[in-house]
Amino acid sequence: MDTVHRLTLGDLAREHRRSRPGGTAAVDGDERLSYVDLDDRANRVANALAAAGVGTGDRVLWLGQTSARVLELLLGCAKLGAVLCPANARQSADELRFVLGDLDPRVVVWQSALGDAAREVRDARFIEAGDEYRAWLDAASPTDDERSVDPGLPVLALYTAAFDGRPNAALLSHTALLAHSVSIGWIRQIEPGFTYLNSGPLFHVGTMMFCLATFHLGGTNVFTPGFVPAEVCRLIERERCTSAFLYGPMLDQLVEANTGEDGKARRDLSSLHFSAGSDAWNAMITVDESPWGRALGGYGQSEVAGMLTFTGLGLGALGSHGRPSPFAQVRIVDAGGAEVPAGEVGEMVARGPIMFSGYWNRAELNAAKQAGGWHHTGDLARRESDGTITFIGPKLRMIKSGGENVYPAEVERALTTHPGIKEAAVIGVPDERWGQTVKAVVVASDPSLTAEDVVAHVRERIASYKKPSHVVFTGALPRRGFTPDYDALDEAHGGGGYPIV
Amino acid sequence: MDTVHRLTLGDLAREHRRSRPGGTAAVDGDERLSYVDLDDRANRVANALAAAGVGTGDRVLWLGQTSARVLELLLGCAKLGAVLCPANARQSADELRFVLGDLDPRVVVWQSALGDAAREVRDARFIEAGDEYRAWLDAASPTDDERSVDPGLPVLALYTAAFDGRPNAALLSHTALLAHSVSIGWIRQIEPGFTYLNSGPLFHVGTMMFCLATFHLGGTNVFTPGFVPAEVCRLIERERCTSAFLYGPMLDQLVEANTGEDGKARRDLSSLHFSAGSDAWNAMITVDESPWGRALGGYGQSEVAGMLTFTGLGLGALGSHGRPSPFAQVRIVDAGGAEVPAGEVGEMVARGPIMFSGYWNRAELNAAKQAGGWHHTGDLARRESDGTITFIGPKLRMIKSGGENVYPAEVERALTTHPGIKEAAVIGVPDERWGQTVKAVVVASDPSLTAEDVVAHVRERIASYKKPSHVVFTGALPRRGFTPDYDALDEAHGGGGYPIV
Repeated sequence: MDTVHRLTLGDLAREHRRSRPGGTAAVDGDERLSYVDLDDRANRVANALAAAGVGTGDRVLWLGQTSARVLELLLGCAKLGAVLCPANARQSADELRFVLGDLDPRVVVWQSALGDAAREVRDARFIEAGDEYRAWLDAASPTDDERSVDPGLPVLALYTAAFDGRPNAALLSHTALLAHSVSIGWIRQIEPGFTYLNSGPLFHVGTMMFCLATFHLGGTNVFTPGFVPAEVCRLIERERCTSAFLYGPMLDQLVEANTGEDGKARRDLSSLHFSAGSDAWNAMITVDESPWGRALGGYGQSEVAGMLTFTGLGLGALGSHGRPSPFAQVRIVDAGGAEVPAGEVGEMVARGPIMFSGYWNRAELNAAKQAGGWHHTGDLARRESDGTITFIGPKLRMIKSGGENVYPAEVERALTTHPGIKEAAVIGVPDERWGQTVKAVVVASDPSLTAEDVVAHVRERIASYKKPSHVVFTGALPRRGFTPDYDALDEAHGGGGYPIV
Repeated sequence: MDTVHRLTLGDLAREHRRSRPGGTAAVDGDERLSYVDLDDRANRVANALAAAGVGTGDRVLWLGQTSARVLELLLGCAKLGAVLCPANARQSADELRFVLGDLDPRVVVWQSALGDAAREVRDARFIEAGDEYRAWLDAASPTDDERSVDPGLPVLALYTAAFDGRPNAALLSHTALLAHSVSIGWIRQIEPGFTYLNSGPLFHVGTMMFCLATFHLGGTNVFTPGFVPAEVCRLIERERCTSAFLYGPMLDQLVEANTGEDGKARRDLSSLHFSAGSDAWNAMITVDESPWGRALGGYGQSEVAGMLTFTGLGLGALGSHGRPSPFAQVRIVDAGGAEVPAGEVGEMVARGPIMFSGYWNRAELNAAKQAGGWHHTGDLARRESDGTITFIGPKLRMIKSGGENVYPAEVERALTTHPGIKEAAVIGVPDERWGQTVKAVVVASDPSLTAEDVVAHVRERIASYKKPSHVVFTGALPRRGFTPDYDALDEAHGGGGYPIV
């Protein structure tokens, strides 16, 4: 291996130890780890794992909440050439059994307080994350064995992409994570003064990518087990957090939790630099009007280590999802892999060092995902005339009606411009004549809204063949993270017959 | 080769073409190249070079001034897997003969107006950069053959490091240049609105690294053949340049050239964001007080694609040269390669994707430079207690006096704290009793200053064995770029006998 050009997550831990001996790497409850402490922990983890028989390419599973344990386990795996998978601990016993069978980890670190499912599937590989884990680490040497690890090897696995109902573990290499971290550092102004509150789950790339960038660029990671508004406010105040994993309804919950009976803020959240929201939100935080705070967005997925396109720093304009990361090429292609002209919708494919290394144990799927030497995102997008990219929606969700392609996202955008519609999701339902027709599932804010109103509204805005043939009203949309749960919608409302699988 | 993870300079040209069809890539005189134009040029260069027999690993030589030609030639070579070397065209015929023999280029593009030396050594490989070059490109196809190029291959060669009197061509890979560009983009806020005036030579990494980062991150490169103050002011005003290759005495020359007889500024330089200087300078430009403008500095060399350490963005403090690039590990080691404790001086060695691929055609030297899997910078440095790094000086210049190590930079710093000393350089002279003794070459601002004053001043500040045994006064120090020309000083003042070669 080419040692002179090597840089791994373990190497970063080594460099931070030298460069930032006094810097705070992690805060978790009452525990504070300097960058020296963190490297010591990583060494103990590596040595303890090695003693447990973990070697290059072996998997280690974390079943627990957001915690500094995830970072130290990841760095320990990094120093061994092993792979850490932080998985959702709140899955059912059957789901956990699937993960254990699929990933075949050599060691599992689990938090026993999270329910009975993990207890049910527990075996000799399980180490409880409390006293047992502490004793296990205390017994290991903090010496750095400086094993030489190829940075092209995977080090992190994130379960995602349930194409056929079962999730797949996306493998990310040191090289992919390091390139991605610096791209995020560039677009988000991450540097040693950056203090990130890990208030989302580390088994999702959304929080993990900021955790890694903060570590890479010498900032401070603050961990909290889950999103509890009052506790988040307390931590932002105490640690002077500059950023956090927050979105949508979380902001209102923070405002509510942080407004005292006298109407004043309970905690000082002014260290937090964030985009503008409600007046009450803006009054509590520092609204970030810098080039790094404005118009932040883009398109991402676990398979590209986080973000593939960005709208910040002058990368956005006409298209809603900006331009590619400095570590990626992006093409919009047809079913045969040929590039389509600007303005036309096709699948977004990408190349570059941030791409994942395939899914664990999915040779056939990986061959399809990397056909022609491009990573196939499985998502539809369009290049606009200025070169920016608009994400349309999942390729699997495209509706084919009377030979025409209908993209649910486009219809949904038209629907939600109606003042009487709070939210809406669009599915395809099988139709004898047209193959599929469009069905809108609508949450109305105006109780007098009719199906005819909805159809008429859409027809005025987009091509007639895209208008819903069927409209159903519901009290709330089922959700999976940020997006509606389309599988649940299909099941509840007769969806199916999608053309591309 | 692993195509999914591939990213080359050629791939960036392809992506910019898609992402920034309307963006201005380069301005050179009356010529303006959009990113589409630039990619077309790169394709023509690649096809013309291929027709001339240039293939993977072959070298192409540029003998000319700073120009958009260098960027298009580099991208053309990138698409072929070839290597561009922009060399100093103002060398003597003997020096050019050395370069031609050493590099063995297949094609040389030269500017005939630069003197007779190139004309003297010219052969069938030479293409004149004017009409002949234009016709050569016009005859080539602008089609992109999309040859697959390994990003680990070298694409740029920069002559540097004349260890034994002959220069060596440092080879830089796509991967090294791309990682470095994003690190510079991070520390310097380079994005599509960044407009860089290439006002220094492109055969030095100092200008080249900014040219490449500006290209990589979608900004605009403006080229001017050399540093002519009035022309530089005109270009800053016309192109609204936000940055330029400027240092030290250049700033005063710009102020002088830009001050009209009425005392007012001739040209509007307010687009230029730069660090503060004289009052007159500050009044002309926009003084950059952002985190990206403050305390900018660090340590660099061609062999790391540019910068190895940075002082900006919270990376600096006690040590004068900050902390490592996010793409490097740095150690300070003794002669045996073992890490020395913080506070002790040793050679700075480094690892990471920004490291060069060795010197062209120097197998023995390369083995020594990469001993133990670390790039040996050839420079002495010290870790401070806070983890920052202080660059001391070239290892080859260390003086050994009575068994003690004396670092010229340390003595020079002590010398220049004297109000009567304008500048000073320190060399070692052979000495029968001590091996070497310290000699100070001093430019005095106070004509009454004596050698005794100088010695007494140093003795008060640093250990006695480091004080000069000899002091000579001179009117000006010979310079090589930013630093005194120590070879010339040794020759003029009897230097020699340095312990490490």
